[in-house]
Amino acid sequence: MSVVSKGLENVVIKVTSLTYIDGEKGILRYRGYDINDLVKFGSYEETIYLMLYGKLPNIKELEKLKEKLNEEYEVPQEVIDAIYLMPRDADAIGLLEVGTAALASLDKNFKWKENDKEKAISIIAKMSTLVANVFRRKEGNKPRIPESSDSYAKSFLAASLSKEPTPEEVNAMDKALILYADHEVPASTTAALVASSTLSDMYSSITAALAALKGPLHGGAAEEAFKQFLEIKEINNVENWFNEKILNQKNRLMGFGHRVYKTYDPRAKIFKNLASTLVEKNSDAKKYFEIAQKLEELGIKYFANKGIYPNTDFYSGIVFYALGFPVYMFTALFALSRTLGWLAHIIEYVEEQHRLIRPRALYVGPEYRQYVPLNQR
Amino acid sequence: MSVVSKGLENVVIKVTSLTYIDGEKGILRYRGYDINDLVKFGSYEETIYLMLYGKLPNIKELEKLKEKLNEEYEVPQEVIDAIYLMPRDADAIGLLEVGTAALASLDKNFKWKENDKEKAISIIAKMSTLVANVFRRKEGNKPRIPESSDSYAKSFLAASLSKEPTPEEVNAMDKALILYADHEVPASTTAALVASSTLSDMYSSITAALAALKGPLHGGAAEEAFKQFLEIKEINNVENWFNEKILNQKNRLMGFGHRVYKTYDPRAKIFKNLASTLVEKNSDAKKYFEIAQKLEELGIKYFANKGIYPNTDFYSGIVFYALGFPVYMFTALFALSRTLGWLAHIIEYVEEQHRLIRPRALYVGPEYRQYVPLNQR
Repeated sequence: MSVVSKGLENVVIKVTSLTYIDGEKGILRYRGYDINDLVKFGSYEETIYLMLYGKLPNIKELEKLKEKLNEEYEVPQEVIDAIYLMPRDADAIGLLEVGTAALASLDKNFKWKENDKEKAISIIAKMSTLVANVFRRKEGNKPRIPESSDSYAKSFLAASLSKEPTPEEVNAMDKALILYADHEVPASTTAALVASSTLSDMYSSITAALAALKGPLHGGAAEEAFKQFLEIKEINNVENWFNEKILNQKNRLMGFGHRVYKTYDPRAKIFKNLASTLVEKNSDAKKYFEIAQKLEELGIKYFANKGIYPNTDFYSGIVFYALGFPVYMFTALFALSRTLGWLAHIIEYVEEQHRLIRPRALYVGPEYRQYVPLNQR
Repeated sequence: MSVVSKGLENVVIKVTSLTYIDGEKGILRYRGYDINDLVKFGSYEETIYLMLYGKLPNIKELEKLKEKLNEEYEVPQEVIDAIYLMPRDADAIGLLEVGTAALASLDKNFKWKENDKEKAISIIAKMSTLVANVFRRKEGNKPRIPESSDSYAKSFLAASLSKEPTPEEVNAMDKALILYADHEVPASTTAALVASSTLSDMYSSITAALAALKGPLHGGAAEEAFKQFLEIKEINNVENWFNEKILNQKNRLMGFGHRVYKTYDPRAKIFKNLASTLVEKNSDAKKYFEIAQKLEELGIKYFANKGIYPNTDFYSGIVFYALGFPVYMFTALFALSRTLGWLAHIIEYVEEQHRLIRPRALYVGPEYRQYVPLNQR
């Protein structure tokens, strides 16, 4: 027990049948299906079914899942009120935590191993309501519950942006949801596992995941990456900025590098493609896309030999921005998608391999010390 | 990377100078000071100072700490409102999560390594406000902010119970706060570490800890232990109940056994002593104390040879109950105290040994699968 596993690097916290990553080759699969295939041919709803039930749904199963999602967008009024009670400039993930915590406080009769997967679908639907209303609150708009539709992405965009999204927008949001749906056990998923290992409820486990996702080293990365593009401002400023901020000042290039991938993150490629289509109708987003491409070139030139390549957060912000979301929402959109992965992992853990998570700390402090009374110190 | 560390048992997640546990000998020390000495001679405020600053305070340092606590009980009105917005029968820890999440959403400019310890003291004060008001909300009372006094325990009890506590009550609460203040890295502390490792804010890290504490296998244990006493009802029913529920039905004896202690938990002994004094003025609590003692006898008779002894949660509920708190508050009172340990550990981790926590999962799912179009499934 004397070796510290710093950052739990290479410590295996669970087995999984959910997500396979080959960090050397840049492969990502959900339950055996390549991420490229899922994005090309599938939908987020199919991904939800796949992750929870282990197989792609047939037409009937898919319809039933969509029905269930449509039925579950409603949340108790207090939960909406709690979000709108907070000021507009409150942090988006903090507000989401308020929403999931409020749901946890109301979920008093929660028990594990009773319709876990149905509960997960309900939570995924309600997460759409929470994220849409965190956005609406921050924009100063009135509450709005997602309405039934044939697409989770469409219902979410319509509720968030108060307008019917175009098919291209629905498609991009749907793909983004697939891309962020799971990534094995990063910090947020680990936090959810730790919480669920005490048999805490699902909403609290999601709250724990959000708390971890909130950090700039995790979910905040897409926002940080995009802030670089905003700071650079103009395409012909990229090289100067890179030389000064990254090479001279040794700042970290955000959206580059990953604990697991040592090559191009397969999700980054797909997000780049999605962005390239989507920005065609949005000159502002297009400018940032061009800045990002130029910055990517420089990043690869200087860092590829160290195994540092663009990760999923490098281009995802451009997709979200082109869809009409400001930077402060990027992490919340990540959370909307990743709720699926969090739930799939905690269900897998509690149902099949449950054990209370309780690591150790190595004590390196003072030996026994005699207590000295206050007036003698 | 092929061996799964189930429950992270014996995995060392960090080094620490905070808490030393010898599970074989039943020793617990905070920064070298034995828990028995701290409870006998010290106060919770001294323990706060000790844990955060590494030494016992002198008179001046202690006064300054108490002043700071007294100054920091106020929280933004929205935070109180969010708690009172939820129905009375909402879960107490869920409500606490709402409070800390609300504070996280407002703490937009949080940065690590800027007065971390002062921030921790402010959070410890505000936690008293949150826990008191979770209780008041659930009891149907109006909000009340703890008032300045010479004792954190006293301010908390007065705000919670709307009456001046007796010196014995203040003493018992103060000792309970010391006893639960830290215990190395159980699930709640681990959740806080995971969240803070992404450089998420302190309030979110506390929210993650609460989410983990909420589970019946962790913070919920004191409530579960006490519910046994309630179920037993009468002292002459203990033996029948034990034979039926524990020996025949093989239910787990709650409040017994610990991942780390293989002997009598030193905190359990102290809680038992505190309880024995406190119940003298409360015949109802006294009855449960007698039931607990009898149940302990039987538990030790049957399980001591397996290293299963009373843990800290076995008698703590009797102390809390005698102070005037119903069972549903026990975990929240644990949280009030443990906030110190959570904060001390995340500060130690981020300031001295920071690394993003990112374990791995071992993939055991299907190999590459060819995508099958929806209409062919």
